[in-house]
Amino acid sequence: MIELRAIGRVESSLNDPADAPLQGHEGAPEAVLVFEPDVVEALDGIAAGDRIILLTWLDRARRDVLRVHPRGDPQNPVQGVFNTRSPERPNPIGLHEVEVLAVDGGAVTVRPLEAVHGTPIVDVKPVL
Amino acid sequence: MIELRAIGRVESSLNDPADAPLQGHEGAPEAVLVFEPDVVEALDGIAAGDRIILLTWLDRARRDVLRVHPRGDPQNPVQGVFNTRSPERPNPIGLHEVEVLAVDGGAVTVRPLEAVHGTPIVDVKPVL
Repeated sequence: MIELRAIGRVESSLNDPADAPLQGHEGAPEAVLVFEPDVVEALDGIAAGDRIILLTWLDRARRDVLRVHPRGDPQNPVQGVFNTRSPERPNPIGLHEVEVLAVDGGAVTVRPLEAVHGTPIVDVKPVL
Repeated sequence: MIELRAIGRVESSLNDPADAPLQGHEGAPEAVLVFEPDVVEALDGIAAGDRIILLTWLDRARRDVLRVHPRGDPQNPVQGVFNTRSPERPNPIGLHEVEVLAVDGGAVTVRPLEAVHGTPIVDVKPVL
């Protein structure tokens, strides 16, 4: 078994996954990434205007689903979850490409982000 | 604490991280992704020619490193690990964009992949 730790949390106006856009570019709002004090040093060099890849843990997703109708639309033929961006998958890791709007210590404002309030953050990487 | 499971492993000619390219496009070889039998159904729809995002667990990486010289080059000014693709980070998740060359049940051949032999696979997503 592999153990991840939450290195921060998403602060967002989105509270209910049912209200969240399926993808960030589909009208998702700004959000603030609030990092744990002991990892803030790892943000050094990230600045407004950067594009980053945010990895989250989609803690409300089911892990026992292997096939879905993409986008939850029964008109779409069933696909394996690895061929979709469904949050339901054996390891529900969310992948979000966002723009950095501001960095203030351990608080990083980004947009657009479809993850709901309280979602654990597990990693951040630069877009190459 | 968040628990991930290995849903498969990388089979590669790369055995030593010291010999692996830093990024896939820097001369990394083909590799075979061998999935656990109970998740093979989640691959439905993935076919040769697709581009996928592979998430791995970089199990040989240090987790207590917060700042590094990018690309391990002391000439590069120190940066926070979240502003680099260093494998050393609090949650060492590897992110690899690869092309699918063949799918044979639970064995998916891809290229190029810089992850070493035995690296655990944790998720697969389509490139959007």
